[in-house]
Amino acid sequence: MIDQSDAWHALEAHVKATGRRHLCELFAEEPDRQVCFTRHAAGLTVDLSKQRWSAETLAHLLALAEQADVPGAIRRLLGGERVNVSEDRPALHTALRLPEGASLVVEGEDVVPGVHRTLERMEAMVERFHTGQWRGATGRAIRHVVNLGVGGSDLGPLMVTHALADYRLRDVHRVEVHFASTMDGSQLADCLARLDPEATLFVLSSKSFTTIDTLSNARTARDWLMARLAGEEGVDAELVMRQHFIGVSASPDKMAEWGIAPAHQLEFWEWVGGRFSLWGGIGLPIALVIGMQRFRELLAGAHALDEHFRTAALADNLPVLLALAGIWNVNFLDIRAHSILPYDGRLEYFAAYLEQLEMESNGKSVTAQGREVGYSTCPVLWGQLGPNAQHAFYQLLHQGTQSVECDFIAPLRRYDEVDNEATRQHLKGQHRLTLANCFAQSRLLALGDDAIDEPGERPGHKRYRGNQPSTTLLLDELTPYTLGALIALYENKVFVQATLWGINPFDQWGVELGKQIAGETQRILESHEGLETMDGSTRALIEAAWAAEANGKASL
Amino acid sequence: MIDQSDAWHALEAHVKATGRRHLCELFAEEPDRQVCFTRHAAGLTVDLSKQRWSAETLAHLLALAEQADVPGAIRRLLGGERVNVSEDRPALHTALRLPEGASLVVEGEDVVPGVHRTLERMEAMVERFHTGQWRGATGRAIRHVVNLGVGGSDLGPLMVTHALADYRLRDVHRVEVHFASTMDGSQLADCLARLDPEATLFVLSSKSFTTIDTLSNARTARDWLMARLAGEEGVDAELVMRQHFIGVSASPDKMAEWGIAPAHQLEFWEWVGGRFSLWGGIGLPIALVIGMQRFRELLAGAHALDEHFRTAALADNLPVLLALAGIWNVNFLDIRAHSILPYDGRLEYFAAYLEQLEMESNGKSVTAQGREVGYSTCPVLWGQLGPNAQHAFYQLLHQGTQSVECDFIAPLRRYDEVDNEATRQHLKGQHRLTLANCFAQSRLLALGDDAIDEPGERPGHKRYRGNQPSTTLLLDELTPYTLGALIALYENKVFVQATLWGINPFDQWGVELGKQIAGETQRILESHEGLETMDGSTRALIEAAWAAEANGKASL
Repeated sequence: MIDQSDAWHALEAHVKATGRRHLCELFAEEPDRQVCFTRHAAGLTVDLSKQRWSAETLAHLLALAEQADVPGAIRRLLGGERVNVSEDRPALHTALRLPEGASLVVEGEDVVPGVHRTLERMEAMVERFHTGQWRGATGRAIRHVVNLGVGGSDLGPLMVTHALADYRLRDVHRVEVHFASTMDGSQLADCLARLDPEATLFVLSSKSFTTIDTLSNARTARDWLMARLAGEEGVDAELVMRQHFIGVSASPDKMAEWGIAPAHQLEFWEWVGGRFSLWGGIGLPIALVIGMQRFRELLAGAHALDEHFRTAALADNLPVLLALAGIWNVNFLDIRAHSILPYDGRLEYFAAYLEQLEMESNGKSVTAQGREVGYSTCPVLWGQLGPNAQHAFYQLLHQGTQSVECDFIAPLRRYDEVDNEATRQHLKGQHRLTLANCFAQSRLLALGDDAIDEPGERPGHKRYRGNQPSTTLLLDELTPYTLGALIALYENKVFVQATLWGINPFDQWGVELGKQIAGETQRILESHEGLETMDGSTRALIEAAWAAEANGKASL
Repeated sequence: MIDQSDAWHALEAHVKATGRRHLCELFAEEPDRQVCFTRHAAGLTVDLSKQRWSAETLAHLLALAEQADVPGAIRRLLGGERVNVSEDRPALHTALRLPEGASLVVEGEDVVPGVHRTLERMEAMVERFHTGQWRGATGRAIRHVVNLGVGGSDLGPLMVTHALADYRLRDVHRVEVHFASTMDGSQLADCLARLDPEATLFVLSSKSFTTIDTLSNARTARDWLMARLAGEEGVDAELVMRQHFIGVSASPDKMAEWGIAPAHQLEFWEWVGGRFSLWGGIGLPIALVIGMQRFRELLAGAHALDEHFRTAALADNLPVLLALAGIWNVNFLDIRAHSILPYDGRLEYFAAYLEQLEMESNGKSVTAQGREVGYSTCPVLWGQLGPNAQHAFYQLLHQGTQSVECDFIAPLRRYDEVDNEATRQHLKGQHRLTLANCFAQSRLLALGDDAIDEPGERPGHKRYRGNQPSTTLLLDELTPYTLGALIALYENKVFVQATLWGINPFDQWGVELGKQIAGETQRILESHEGLETMDGSTRALIEAAWAAEANGKASL
C-alpha cells in the first residue's frame, strides 16, 4: 500500500513540519514561483504556482511517483499491457490516436491498421452525409442525426461538438446533430416533436449494446419512424431500418440482432472504455459537425500529449504534475472537492465530461489486488462555466468553510477569424474581459484579503480567507488540436492518480450492480410481485407509485 | 455560537455514543422506519428514512432548532423583519407569492398590492406577445425572446421554463424563449446567428442593472439590431430600443439610462435577492412559455409550502426536517458533499439552480455578528439527471471513499395526458423504468452489499460499502404547483440552515469583491499599465495574453 511507503511517510512529515502555509506566504517568499511551476506542451500552458506547495513538496511527490513506479505504469499503459486487471484486458484508448503508419503490437497483433480502417469507414459515412448522398427511406437526404447514447456514448461527443462548433464545415450538405440520453424519454420526445422523420437518422451508441436507457430511446425512435414511413410507396420496414440507423458498439452481434445493417455498423474494441471512447466511432457526431480532417486534428492533439506523457521526465510531465497536485490536496491537505471552471462558453459541457472521466475512473476504494485502501481517492468534481459560476457558487469558494481545489481553463486567443472589424474588436473585448475575470478570481482565491488594495479594516462579512489552491490551464487557442491535447491531459492524469492510489481506473463495477438491482425493482413495479423482499422504505415508495398509477387511471 | 449550546453538545455526545451506525442496522432494528420519517405537504412526499439517524437523533436536532430559535426566525422572515443584516433589509421573496387580497405590512407599508400590480403588468405584456400584438420596429410580430441575464437572472427562469415545457400554451401566437448568459458572448453569438432581428426582442434581467456580463451581451444585441434595423424606412434608433427591449431590474433609473422605455420596464424590489427572484418580473420568460394562469399556479404552490413552513410543528415541518438532515450530515457525520439527482429529464437544470441557491446563500463563514464560525457550513452541492449520473459519477457514490448525501427527486405520475394509447403506454413504461432506477439506487446506496441478493463472497471490486444517506422527494406529478412547492421547500430549508449556523443567507459579499478585482485586472490587460501591482503568477498570465494578442495581430 502506497501509504506505507517511505515517500508517503516523508510527505506526512513534510506537511506536519511546514504546516499548512498560506499561499500569501509562499508568494512572499518566492515572488517568481510561477517560473518554477509553469510548463508547456502541445499548445497548452499549465501554471501550478497557485497550488499550496513548494519545490520541496514537489520533490517529495516526485519521489512518491517513483516509488509507485509511475514510469513503468505509463510504459505498460501505452504498450498495451493488461492494465485493466479486473476485466483482464488492456486499456488502449491511446491507440485510437496513433498516427497512420505507426505500429503497436499487442499480444501479437498490430492494432493500428484496424484503428485506421475504422477511421476510413467513418470518413466514408461522413462523406455520404456531407454530399447529401445519405438518403432516408423515402429518398430525402438526411438532415438531422440524433445520437442516442448515455454516459461515455453521450458526454464525449456532446462536449466536443459543442466546444468545436466554430469549426463546423460550411460548404457541405448541412446535417444538424442532436443528442438524446435520458431514459425517461424527455429529451428524445423534444427532438421528435421538431424533426422530420424522412430526413432524420439515429446513431445508436452503446459499447455493450445492452444499455437500457439507450435501447428504450431507440425503440421509441424506431416506432416513431415506422409509424410515419413504413407503408409509404416502396418503403418497407427493412429499408427504414437500413437508411435511418447507424450502430456504434463493441458488439456486432447485438447490433445485427437489433437490426442495424452490417454496412452501417461502426465497431470498436473491448479494450476501449466507454468514457475514453470519443476518439473512434463514438466520435461520429463530432466528425459530422467538423469533418474528418479536423477530427484527425483532434486525434493529433491527443497523440501529441500522449507523446509528451511518454517521453517527458516526471518533473516536466504535465499529466504527472496535475496528478501530484491532486494527490497533495486530497491526501495531505484533506481537500475533498475539485471544481472545473472553464472561462469559455464553448466549454459548457467540459465539467460534466470530466465528472464522469474522473469520478467513474477513480471513485474506487479497493486496490487492484482487492484490498481496501486506508486513504482518500477521487474527490468530488463539479463545475460550471467560470463566469456564470461567479454568480452562483463562487461565494462558497471565497467565503465558505470548505477547501476546494480549482482548475481555471481559458484560451489565450480568440475571435481572430471574425470578418467584420467592429464585431471582432467588440468580441475581443469580451474575451479580454473574460480572461481578466479568470486571472482575477484565481488570484483572489489564492491571496484572499491580500489581493485587495483597500485601506482600513473590513468587517467580517467582507473578508476573504484565500488559500484555495488552483491550477490555471491556458490553451493557445481552442482548436481541435488543443482540445484533443486537453482531454488527453486529463485522461492521462487520471491514470497517474490511479497508479498512485493503487486502484484500477478502467473498470466500473459500482455501475454494473446498480443496473442489476434496478432490473429487480422494475420487475416488482411492473408485476406487483415480490414487494416483501424489499426494505420498508423501498416498499413504501413502490406502493406510492402504484397508488399514483391507480389514481391516474381512475381520473381518466 | 451554536456549537457552544447544550443541544450541540448533546448531539456530539449522541454521535459518539451511538457510533456511526450503518443504515443496514438502522433498518434491521426498525424495519418500518419510513413510517416515522415520511411527511407530505403541498403535493410533495419526503422520505427521510434513509438518513443515518434515529428518532433520538431527530429529537436532539429538534432541540437544536429550538435552541437556535428557528420558530422565531421563521416568524421574522415571513413577517418582513430586516433579516438580511449586512444589507439592513428584509428578504421578502415569500411576499412575491402571497395571494391577492392578502396583506403584509412591512415597516408601515402593505407590500402585497405592489406585488400584484407587477404581476398585472407582466400579464399585460405576456398578453401582447401571445396575441401577436408585440411588434418589432419594422412591424413584424415578435417570435423570439432572448433572456440576457446571469446567476439569479438566468438559472431560475431557465430551470423552470425547461421543467414546465409540457405546459407550453398551444393556442397562442408562438414565442420562443432563449437564454444567453456567458460574458464571453458565446451563447449570444449562437442565438444571433439563428434569429431574425425583425422578430426578436431581448429581456435585460439584472437586479442592479450593472452586471457586466449581461450589459456586455446587451450591447452586442443592441449593435446587432441597430446595424440591421435602424435606417430602414420609418425606423429610427428610438423605435428599435422601444420595441426590442424589456428591462427587469430593481433600478428604474439605470434602466432608463440604458434606454429601456418606461412602459417596458418591470421593476422589482431591493428586498428580493437575485437567487430568490424568479417569482416576479425575472420570471417573465416562464410566463411567456406557460402563460400567466400557470405562472400563478407556480406561485400558489410556493405559497402553500410557505404556509406549511409557517404553521407546521418543527417535527412535521419539511424545510426544517431537510435542514436538520443536512446539519446532521455536515456537522456531525462530516459529510461535505451533497448530490442532487432528479429522475426526470425535465429537471435538467434543477441541480445547477440549487447549486446557486444553496452555495451562494450559505457559503459563508462569519456569523451575522461578524464572528468567524468554528464549524462547517454549506457543503459542496452538485448534481445531474439521476439516470445519466448513473453512467457517470455514481461509481464514486457506490465505491469511492467520499461520503455524500444525495437527494433523489421524481414525479410519481407522468404521461397521463399523452393522447395516443400506444405511445402513452410506451412512455409510461419508460417512466416506471426511471422510478425503478431511482428507488433501486437509493436502496443500494443505503444498504450496500445487503441490497444484493447473490449468494457467496464477492471479490473486493464488486463490494458495496453502502451507508450513503439520502432523502427521496416525490412529486405527485410535475406541475407548476408542485414545482413551486419544491423550489420553496429548498429556499426555506436554506433559511433554516442559515439560522442554525448563525449566518446571513441573503448577502453575497464574496461575489462583490471579485467583481472589483476583475475590473482592476481588466484595466491592466487593456491599458498595459499597472502590471507591477500583481503577483508573479498573475503577471505571467497577463503577459501570456499580451503575447498571444501580438501573435494574433502578426499572423493577420
